[in-house]
Amino acid sequence: MGTMPGYFDHNATTPIAGVARRAWVEAEESYWHNPSGLYREAGESRRVLEDWREALADHLDVEDPERLVFTSGATEANNAIVGHFARNLGGVIVVSGIEHPSVEAPASLLEKNERLRRLPTDPLNGTVELGYLREWISKGEVGAVSLMAANNETGALQPWREAAALCREAGIPFHTDAAQWIGKLPVCGFHQAGFVTGSAHKFGGAKGVGFLVLPEEELGSPFHGLVGGPQEQGRRAGTENLPGVASMVAALLERGDATLTDWSERQARFRDDFEVRLEKEAGVKILAKGGDRLWNTSMFVLPEGKNVKWLARLSQRGYSVSTGSACSAGKENPSSVMMAMGLSFEEMGRVLRISGGGETGEEEWMGLAEAIIEVGKEIGA
Amino acid sequence: MGTMPGYFDHNATTPIAGVARRAWVEAEESYWHNPSGLYREAGESRRVLEDWREALADHLDVEDPERLVFTSGATEANNAIVGHFARNLGGVIVVSGIEHPSVEAPASLLEKNERLRRLPTDPLNGTVELGYLREWISKGEVGAVSLMAANNETGALQPWREAAALCREAGIPFHTDAAQWIGKLPVCGFHQAGFVTGSAHKFGGAKGVGFLVLPEEELGSPFHGLVGGPQEQGRRAGTENLPGVASMVAALLERGDATLTDWSERQARFRDDFEVRLEKEAGVKILAKGGDRLWNTSMFVLPEGKNVKWLARLSQRGYSVSTGSACSAGKENPSSVMMAMGLSFEEMGRVLRISGGGETGEEEWMGLAEAIIEVGKEIGA
Repeated sequence: MGTMPGYFDHNATTPIAGVARRAWVEAEESYWHNPSGLYREAGESRRVLEDWREALADHLDVEDPERLVFTSGATEANNAIVGHFARNLGGVIVVSGIEHPSVEAPASLLEKNERLRRLPTDPLNGTVELGYLREWISKGEVGAVSLMAANNETGALQPWREAAALCREAGIPFHTDAAQWIGKLPVCGFHQAGFVTGSAHKFGGAKGVGFLVLPEEELGSPFHGLVGGPQEQGRRAGTENLPGVASMVAALLERGDATLTDWSERQARFRDDFEVRLEKEAGVKILAKGGDRLWNTSMFVLPEGKNVKWLARLSQRGYSVSTGSACSAGKENPSSVMMAMGLSFEEMGRVLRISGGGETGEEEWMGLAEAIIEVGKEIGA
Repeated sequence: MGTMPGYFDHNATTPIAGVARRAWVEAEESYWHNPSGLYREAGESRRVLEDWREALADHLDVEDPERLVFTSGATEANNAIVGHFARNLGGVIVVSGIEHPSVEAPASLLEKNERLRRLPTDPLNGTVELGYLREWISKGEVGAVSLMAANNETGALQPWREAAALCREAGIPFHTDAAQWIGKLPVCGFHQAGFVTGSAHKFGGAKGVGFLVLPEEELGSPFHGLVGGPQEQGRRAGTENLPGVASMVAALLERGDATLTDWSERQARFRDDFEVRLEKEAGVKILAKGGDRLWNTSMFVLPEGKNVKWLARLSQRGYSVSTGSACSAGKENPSSVMMAMGLSFEEMGRVLRISGGGETGEEEWMGLAEAIIEVGKEIGA
């Protein structure tokens, strides 16, 4: 049994890890002084902050810790990066059609100036097709690219490494929103992926804190997020949230490659068995099944009835699941990810997203499958 | 003796209050689920979040809790409000010349389009003069106004209530950055001051969290901060930092009017005695002495020697003080507040800021005065 039995919404948020809570409390007790102050205790806070920065840089294989900027989360960082691309670069900004809303919303503002292009997604595997990107780059039309590492809804892994390499060769700024990847899969390759965003509460860190990796070549550039203070080398103003940072990095370091590989193998097996059972006995249609996915995620279309009705009945049975962004999706308010996955408006209202944790037990997965089958019988599927 | 002996940098940040730490830990343990989820536990997080919102609204005399938006701090909110004024309103934006950098930096971007005007400051009392504002408003030139409640450096209280009233009468959006006021002085009047920003770590709450009060008439308007999610009524995207919010509101509620009035009277007496002694025995020049100031703040020009040298020697004696923004200020990098206070470039390098807490002891204030006098003798003043 996992520590949070029945909790299948890890892609939304995670319970705080013990090491993360302890790191937060220790920092609030012992290193609460303003790291930008000039007295002794302030210097200690500064040293501790920079130690955490260095530990995170090591973990990400980033040589220069100055490339790491601490933020209030992935949303802040994603907004800032898209804003930076829009303000400071020419050409079109290329994004996928399945980005998180914190990339999609600021990017969509560029649409009216025809400065935005979206990469199409293969609905079978939920993965973007890079062919167009190659073509647009070769024509010299691309100003910057933002492609997420793993989709928050379907779990589909994206070809971010290939896209980063294409951009690197062409000298085009690249960004990957890795909020769903970091803490679930090994971090291999992010040190050369340009701008990278991560979010603490997706992997057992405190809420309200995240980080941003800057590309090396950007260190001399005008990129900034919040303004009005010298913190983070002038790239993100505001008193440093050292307790949040401590909690974030402590949580991430606990998820070393060996742990993640172990989780990945075990959990993917549980998840796959879960899906086999659901397909057979509940008549669901699994999304993005044809490609590589996060080991913890399963998104599917229910055979009938509104997803919120299923969700409520599963909650009564002790299972916490999500509709992803498909909660109120439909004709009036279509979900861009569901559109990219080729769903009809009607199907969008029948989608559920399941996202387990590293320590979710096999019996929890099977219990959830049972519960879904039961609810299906009640609803008359 | 206060709980943090020798700590005189409360305007930079404060140690977390016991109630705030407990509220944070409780929320991370019991209410860590995503408040935007649809299952039972998510609903509980939502309820707790809205309870804290309502408690804060009550405390601020704000009738509609929907007017409160939780942010990552005052910097984020100040950036967003100035950006909103610049994008969505015509006319000039009026600010004081002594705003916090998180207002000043985004405002200064408007200078090149001649869309910015700064209210002059009276160097004797550190307070802006509203005469110009009246005139500019009567000529119909003003699009919006941002005037801080209390200055972070000198502690000078600003006529924000009068400015808010002028703007209200004229139907002009008004903002006050109250990060230094809230938690030190009673909150009377903020419910009708338009946009108001506050920051948790200035009054014993967690770092990385703050709030923003929206004016009533703005509820139907396009104001937003971070985009890309439905949180905070679509006004601030990103997973809600409920533990941070809990910690912030718990800390603020502990600072009721009676407590603040008591602190205000006692501490102002200690501070005034401290200043009398320093003027007589250390030859300092107190800034903004002619007007009303925060009870905890004293900023002065030292008779000689660089401020960082004094600061280091005070730190060796166990006293933590600040140079305010005057740390590296001088001809190359003048401090706007010091300029407004009429200091020469040379004087800027001799400024110290002292900011005590509600429970700083009289003997701490006197000990600091002694230490400054001693250091003065060493340095040869």
